[in-house]
Amino acid sequence: MQKITLLINCPDRKGIVTTITQFILEKQGNIVYLDQHVDRQESTFFMRIETEFDQPEFSISSFEKIFAARFETDYQLTYQLFDALHKPRLALFVSKYDHCLYDLLGRNASGELQVEIPLIISNHPDLEIVAKRFDIPFKYIPVTKATKAEAEAEQIKTIKEHNIDLIVLARYMQIISDDFVSKFKYQIINIHHSFLPAFIGAKPYHAAFERGVKIIGATSHYVTADLDEGPIIEQEIVRVSHVHSVQDFILKGRDLEKVVLARAIKAHIAHKVLVFGNKTVIFS
Amino acid sequence: MQKITLLINCPDRKGIVTTITQFILEKQGNIVYLDQHVDRQESTFFMRIETEFDQPEFSISSFEKIFAARFETDYQLTYQLFDALHKPRLALFVSKYDHCLYDLLGRNASGELQVEIPLIISNHPDLEIVAKRFDIPFKYIPVTKATKAEAEAEQIKTIKEHNIDLIVLARYMQIISDDFVSKFKYQIINIHHSFLPAFIGAKPYHAAFERGVKIIGATSHYVTADLDEGPIIEQEIVRVSHVHSVQDFILKGRDLEKVVLARAIKAHIAHKVLVFGNKTVIFS
Amino acid sequence: MQKITLLINCPDRKGIVTTITQFILEKQGNIVYLDQHVDRQESTFFMRIETEFDQPEFSISSFEKIFAARFETDYQLTYQLFDALHKPRLALFVSKYDHCLYDLLGRNASGELQVEIPLIISNHPDLEIVAKRFDIPFKYIPVTKATKAEAEAEQIKTIKEHNIDLIVLARYMQIISDDFVSKFKYQIINIHHSFLPAFIGAKPYHAAFERGVKIIGATSHYVTADLDEGPIIEQEIVRVSHVHSVQDFILKGRDLEKVVLARAIKAHIAHKVLVFGNKTVIFS
Amino acid sequence: MQKITLLINCPDRKGIVTTITQFILEKQGNIVYLDQHVDRQESTFFMRIETEFDQPEFSISSFEKIFAARFETDYQLTYQLFDALHKPRLALFVSKYDHCLYDLLGRNASGELQVEIPLIISNHPDLEIVAKRFDIPFKYIPVTKATKAEAEAEQIKTIKEHNIDLIVLARYMQIISDDFVSKFKYQIINIHHSFLPAFIGAKPYHAAFERGVKIIGATSHYVTADLDEGPIIEQEIVRVSHVHSVQDFILKGRDLEKVVLARAIKAHIAHKVLVFGNKTVIFS
Repeated sequence: MQKITLLINCPDRKGIVTTITQFILEKQGNIVYLDQHVDRQESTFFMRIETEFDQPEFSISSFEKIFAARFETDYQLTYQLFDALHKPRLALFVSKYDHCLYDLLGRNASGELQVEIPLIISNHPDLEIVAKRFDIPFKYIPVTKATKAEAEAEQIKTIKEHNIDLIVLARYMQIISDDFVSKFKYQIINIHHSFLPAFIGAKPYHAAFERGVKIIGATSHYVTADLDEGPIIEQEIVRVSHVHSVQDFILKGRDLEKVVLARAIKAHIAHKVLVFGNKTVIFS
Repeated sequence: MQKITLLINCPDRKGIVTTITQFILEKQGNIVYLDQHVDRQESTFFMRIETEFDQPEFSISSFEKIFAARFETDYQLTYQLFDALHKPRLALFVSKYDHCLYDLLGRNASGELQVEIPLIISNHPDLEIVAKRFDIPFKYIPVTKATKAEAEAEQIKTIKEHNIDLIVLARYMQIISDDFVSKFKYQIINIHHSFLPAFIGAKPYHAAFERGVKIIGATSHYVTADLDEGPIIEQEIVRVSHVHSVQDFILKGRDLEKVVLARAIKAHIAHKVLVFGNKTVIFS
Repeated sequence: MQKITLLINCPDRKGIVTTITQFILEKQGNIVYLDQHVDRQESTFFMRIETEFDQPEFSISSFEKIFAARFETDYQLTYQLFDALHKPRLALFVSKYDHCLYDLLGRNASGELQVEIPLIISNHPDLEIVAKRFDIPFKYIPVTKATKAEAEAEQIKTIKEHNIDLIVLARYMQIISDDFVSKFKYQIINIHHSFLPAFIGAKPYHAAFERGVKIIGATSHYVTADLDEGPIIEQEIVRVSHVHSVQDFILKGRDLEKVVLARAIKAHIAHKVLVFGNKTVIFS
Repeated sequence: MQKITLLINCPDRKGIVTTITQFILEKQGNIVYLDQHVDRQESTFFMRIETEFDQPEFSISSFEKIFAARFETDYQLTYQLFDALHKPRLALFVSKYDHCLYDLLGRNASGELQVEIPLIISNHPDLEIVAKRFDIPFKYIPVTKATKAEAEAEQIKTIKEHNIDLIVLARYMQIISDDFVSKFKYQIINIHHSFLPAFIGAKPYHAAFERGVKIIGATSHYVTADLDEGPIIEQEIVRVSHVHSVQDFILKGRDLEKVVLARAIKAHIAHKVLVFGNKTVIFS
């Protein structure tokens, strides 16, 4: 049995669901999941389909060719097609903060994420002990202003070698260059420790504390060339009050960072996130 | 029986709670509520006390004089003293949006707010029918760039005539001048339809929609000379997703605006809000 | 232009979305909304479609006949078909609590609900003044153990006379008899002031306070023969702590009751609620 | 420097804060934290104080003796006095579910909990590998109906040997006997995977799914002789809808279980939880 996940968007038109599902049925696909959404403002149609194929001769690449030929031009349709049975391979980038790292490694060890984590990359050596607890290869690649380009080149080389599907910046404190980002479009998820677009940049908890907000948040988003401006995948908040110090904000925020990052990763690896404009459609 | 509410802040020192409560006990006050908080970072002490006085000869103004004489200078103490049995008098400023107005008038009619609302002021005539439903005097004071100063002068005159304790901008769409604000320090509560400091200014729901946030909010705050920058009193959020249009954001946001504005008003009239720096301590 | 809303459920089968949308397209309908869900556990398909029909000769009843003939038997399909342009008519049942009443009347007066409220029925005379503020006919029908049957007969007669589509129990304190309920299947929405199934029955805030919960809630549901057991439409919560008295629980709870009841009503009148088993599918 | 934390409750009386803080000042204590609450319904006073003592000759036990002598009888005061610098020692009880275990071990490894975890006890051998990752001694003590008493005797013996301060049931699936519970009054924290008091007992996610709730929760509480009836420490919720299967409820619930259990543990080890009646006062 083979299984594919299709993410589709195109200009809306009458009968589009009909046409696409009909096409799949003709190819003997068994649709096990269908979610669709029409943005009536933009007249754009979005759909996510999971389909199983029983026939021994089925080939995902052949199916993709026929699907693209049928729809890409005539329907001005953009698609992403995934082998739904492929176990995604993640690279985690960390610096010194370990809370998101422990949280993700614990979740994966307990079977929740269903991913391979063949690689942890860091600009500091501190978290190697964490990687060791979970028997995961750790690569220390220091980064300075002068050596940034070489450091990134080595990171990219290592990522390619490990056939990484998704890069997770788990409180990685270095800014990724535009060049790096351009090589991994919508394949880098970052956790920003504020409720974007409030408190962009550094020390958001301190800024939130200064402003006297009554709610703090965390945001996971795809990394783009513009710092903290990429498409938002998930956000979560927690209430704070005058009894909380900056340190309390930070500690409360850490629980948000963990859960927001985990939810974003899970949605992405399940191919439930479709980027359109600078926003995301998150299928259920 | 008389009852006062004291809001206090001063540099923290050993035994401050002891000293103040002792003072009140000596004056035969019966403390029915005490909440205190020490901001250890700022070494600042905050306290709210509700005290009942049974003795027939008790005078709030005399008590205040003695209290101030004892503490203001020696303790560098700032205080606000209220007659807790005084029913606060609110003026509501509205424009064309009526949702917050209906919500507040309904809450007061049902006894929830325990305030007098002797006055509704508007720069449009549209909402007079709402005021009429609740038998509340409505004053239409149009505002144009040219006539702003006169309009505000009339507003201020009307407010003074009605012995107003608190001005509520219930989706009032005009910007209040610095001059006006300076006459009512921390006596003007506004509801801003975003989760500050995100989306300051006009059309925040549209801006939130553009950014593709997954959470929208509303914020109530005291109005200061800086637009949308005053001390935050309360915030609340609701989740949104790709299925929601801008219109959905607006409709969902309206329920937030109502509840956030109501909570802020209730905290203020119960004298539970203490402004310090540009932030608020909200006693429980 | 005419517009219908269809709510459908049937055993899941291949191509069901295709078949139904195709049918509508053949009838020249323009689908402006489609949301579907498959419960894979129960192999049940659910769908909500909004369709516009331009042709002058279009008849909703004729369309319904053909639709039923085509699908009811062959697909074992259950459907509800609504004229989407019909303005729903609500009857509000109240006792002495007025907070939900004021909230709903305010929302409707401000255009949020888009319903007719031709009738408020009460077992007490107290809230007639509220009805008067909003120029709505108020009918006082007292209820005692002895007179319950007659009282309900009169309520039912009045409801029929006014062509009521939905009965809202807005903190109505009488229990509706099974006989009454049977006449209005899934047409009576109640607000229960707890987070069901916790604290069924009377005085839920007191019970919640006794248990020392850290969260209280409110639940709106369709009324069935079993008290507080009907299909849940919406729930919402708020945090509480040791600083809150029972009275605080009640006051906080009232804001929940208002918003939960309003959301349920809005979902119902938009025909977004489909009851299946003793549960609800709430289309987005 | 030594530091103590005092948790106090007694019948409310005038000047009680004054008297106690005065006492501490006389003993040259430096109060660094004070939170108090009066339950006016019960006329009960609650207080939590953190005090530092600089003098070399200070003895916690001596201080306790004097404090008790001064207050216990005269004030009918109940107190708990802790060495605030003592690092709490936790025993984790697990069965086969590993998500809470990974979460707690990760939090402690990253320094968030500031506890010693010298012991993990389980009725199954499965999670020994998790304990090994974190270099924590694992004790497999199988439990059957016939051997329950002996199993518990061995658990208790091991707990005593390790000077355990707090027993955490981290999705431990065995019911603790009344006898065991009586030996560790308010020293056993359990995580129940529902929003108590809804869905007591087994399979709460299935029961919640059957009922069609729109919100699920998790509850941490002290274990008492009555299953799932002990004083609640913390609760948290997440929204669910018709799109979620029972499995989705379970997975979403796991994130709640982790955070609710962690918050309860953190509050307990910081001595912020005071049990009164069957409820908890949680100091800020």
